[in-house]
Amino acid sequence: MKDPTITPSALSRLVGIVGADYVLTSDEDRLCYAYDGQMVEHIPDAVVRPVDAEQVAGVLALANDAGIVVVPRGGGTGLSGGAVASSGGVVLDLTRMDRIVEIDPGNMHAVVQPGVITQALVMAAEKQGLLYPPDPGSIKVSTIGGNVAENAGGLRAGKYGVTRNYLMRIEAVSPTGEAFVSGARTRKCVAGYDLLSLLCGSEGTLGVITEVTVRLVALPRHRSSMIATFAEASTAGQAISNIIAAGLVPATLEIIDNVTLRAIEAYAKLGLPDDAGALVLAEFDGLAKAAVDEEGESAAGILRESGAESITVASNPEERDRIWAARRSALAALSRARPTTILEDVTVPLPKLAEMIAIVQQLAVDFAVTIGTFGHAGDGNLHPTLLTDERDAEEMERVQRAIDGLMDAAISLGGTVSGEHGIGFAKAPFLEREIGPGSLEVMRRIKRALDPNNILNPGKFV
Amino acid sequence: MKDPTITPSALSRLVGIVGADYVLTSDEDRLCYAYDGQMVEHIPDAVVRPVDAEQVAGVLALANDAGIVVVPRGGGTGLSGGAVASSGGVVLDLTRMDRIVEIDPGNMHAVVQPGVITQALVMAAEKQGLLYPPDPGSIKVSTIGGNVAENAGGLRAGKYGVTRNYLMRIEAVSPTGEAFVSGARTRKCVAGYDLLSLLCGSEGTLGVITEVTVRLVALPRHRSSMIATFAEASTAGQAISNIIAAGLVPATLEIIDNVTLRAIEAYAKLGLPDDAGALVLAEFDGLAKAAVDEEGESAAGILRESGAESITVASNPEERDRIWAARRSALAALSRARPTTILEDVTVPLPKLAEMIAIVQQLAVDFAVTIGTFGHAGDGNLHPTLLTDERDAEEMERVQRAIDGLMDAAISLGGTVSGEHGIGFAKAPFLEREIGPGSLEVMRRIKRALDPNNILNPGKFV
Repeated sequence: MKDPTITPSALSRLVGIVGADYVLTSDEDRLCYAYDGQMVEHIPDAVVRPVDAEQVAGVLALANDAGIVVVPRGGGTGLSGGAVASSGGVVLDLTRMDRIVEIDPGNMHAVVQPGVITQALVMAAEKQGLLYPPDPGSIKVSTIGGNVAENAGGLRAGKYGVTRNYLMRIEAVSPTGEAFVSGARTRKCVAGYDLLSLLCGSEGTLGVITEVTVRLVALPRHRSSMIATFAEASTAGQAISNIIAAGLVPATLEIIDNVTLRAIEAYAKLGLPDDAGALVLAEFDGLAKAAVDEEGESAAGILRESGAESITVASNPEERDRIWAARRSALAALSRARPTTILEDVTVPLPKLAEMIAIVQQLAVDFAVTIGTFGHAGDGNLHPTLLTDERDAEEMERVQRAIDGLMDAAISLGGTVSGEHGIGFAKAPFLEREIGPGSLEVMRRIKRALDPNNILNPGKFV
Repeated sequence: MKDPTITPSALSRLVGIVGADYVLTSDEDRLCYAYDGQMVEHIPDAVVRPVDAEQVAGVLALANDAGIVVVPRGGGTGLSGGAVASSGGVVLDLTRMDRIVEIDPGNMHAVVQPGVITQALVMAAEKQGLLYPPDPGSIKVSTIGGNVAENAGGLRAGKYGVTRNYLMRIEAVSPTGEAFVSGARTRKCVAGYDLLSLLCGSEGTLGVITEVTVRLVALPRHRSSMIATFAEASTAGQAISNIIAAGLVPATLEIIDNVTLRAIEAYAKLGLPDDAGALVLAEFDGLAKAAVDEEGESAAGILRESGAESITVASNPEERDRIWAARRSALAALSRARPTTILEDVTVPLPKLAEMIAIVQQLAVDFAVTIGTFGHAGDGNLHPTLLTDERDAEEMERVQRAIDGLMDAAISLGGTVSGEHGIGFAKAPFLEREIGPGSLEVMRRIKRALDPNNILNPGKFV
């Protein structure tokens, strides 16, 4: 393990801010912060664990002054490398700031510290009859601060939107150490630039979030969940486009292809038909049972007309649980197949969904790599997952060419290389291809203006 | 009229970019661009009318090079001074760029140039069975570019959100003249910083929008509309808070106080009970009739329990039209009462709505000024409208003190000084009071980074 490059004097100043117990420098401790969901090792020089916004401001002011790189981190579950010290420096672990400050049913908002696990917020809101809708796959381990930094999406984005859509107000500290706020605990606010949206999805490069106020909605009282089988994944994709084009608004609308389905059955043994070309999973929810049932029936009709071979509507909570257990185990199931799992995150306009699915399948054939595809297809968001072995250089080269093909296809179909996982360092090479040099230059100007010494999460996309 | 300060050489370079017919310098032409909804005169040095993004880029590159102030302008209906040349310079009139480029029912999006009148977009979408939900009061005359620059809200924001929530992708030109894009025509995109949201609501200070892709939704098929009378405006406010706290999601939920109601009746003679303390106007919409009816009935029950003296549910489209005619004529009706109309835009957390309404009424008494209050109360957004005469210095001083009181109250109740109209120059003095110096400094850094010569709409809030 590489020795830390941070100076003893800088370390002692960090200890002065957060206390000796909360500056970690042992090899074991540093290794605990060396990975995120990308599974590429980047060992930080030290780990600093502040307990409040004041300590965060102190750390950033010192870092800006002394030129110490700081990488903010929540649950460390990100999938594009946003929370690892890929350019060295200290990891700023925000998980001690894990208090749910307030849930206000009257204004339907929650105030939370950044280190709150998202699922904890969801459960606290539920007790008051409220829902915090964003539902990233990592919900049981990722933090709300990380969700905001990455603008996390998830299973309910089609109807409910992504993390950004639920932000009312944030408190943050700038890379130069000044605290600031953006937004208000109101349903509308146009008081100056939307710094809140700018920080959301900035992947910890423009500020460290120290408090978040999110909007909550009424907990849905009724659900209609179904699973449909298709002979071909691209037909399933077209069925999904048809549901959305009909004006239906499913809470969740997912696809699972045959590769993924077989992996799930091998892993979780849910009794799903693993000879199907693809599954479509759909759920409608709402406050009025009649409306939910009507939406569910309309969707079933469209699935049938679009070529579904079978449709099973969940008639009780256990059947519904089985549907979502299948979806939630997709990544874990695929990951078991080969030593290395590369999860992609392409998103295309909905009418291009079937075409994108066909391209993924063709790339798998052309480069002789295994790709399992699942994802939030109702958002046009697919997670083609490449199963490989990073120790095999020849195979990895083919994998890389397949990924290149995926990115090019997403861009040429008018889509994006990242629907919800972010750019980090993993996707950085593709960002300019998508947005062009003009957009990237505007981003760089903003980054330089707010972080002139480039101390906050450098070496990521910007 | 003040002579223009722009040099003949700069004018001839502008003519070289957009053509002689589209650089206006006569006194008459300049006067046509001297006002926005604020009605404070600021005569520009010249008006430049580009026809495409290339010309916009040319004008900005020249302006940046020659130090010419540029003020982008759409319909000129803004209510905070965003579209007038308060620091001199040229107005960049974008209304020639008024083409609806595409409406795609499959992906549910529309691509429009910035000068498209918002109502034209709404009508074009309706023909395809789709709805563009944002519904600012100025919808028949304001442009989509202006709506984006101001993040316009309107009557349907409670259920559907504001302009920002419908932006998929924008093309823009930076203050230094470079074209850039942000977002994608997908339902999710996290490719780099959210420049799209940053420009939205930036009031034309960070870039000029040259193309907008907006998301559309299915046109609602059913509606339930009602009007309720209350003896006291604050009771009406509490009823509105109760509807939202019950988890209902009205498409529109508005309040009209007695001052406004009397003005509407005097102006439009709709046969409304003008002795009521306040009216509450509510509408639910959706695809399933049963759900809409159920929501409407629940809302009526809550209004009754909250003290409504009467509730009338619209039983046909004419009755519905009468409800919304009342609301839509509120500002025009109030404006007739006195020579000067000052429309405010405070927004508070919903549980504070009744308190804010009571404070407005008390300020009217304390400073002996007439204030009519109406607005999107379901969003916590009120438009207290001060009726006065700017020629009366003594009265204007009282008006100013009442406005100060309004702003202080909104901030101290945890609200904002602008829910949907923007800051411009009109609200600039209050912005720092609300967001604090730290936030304003971050905004200034961004402004300086993107517009180093401060040529784009200077002298506004930042």
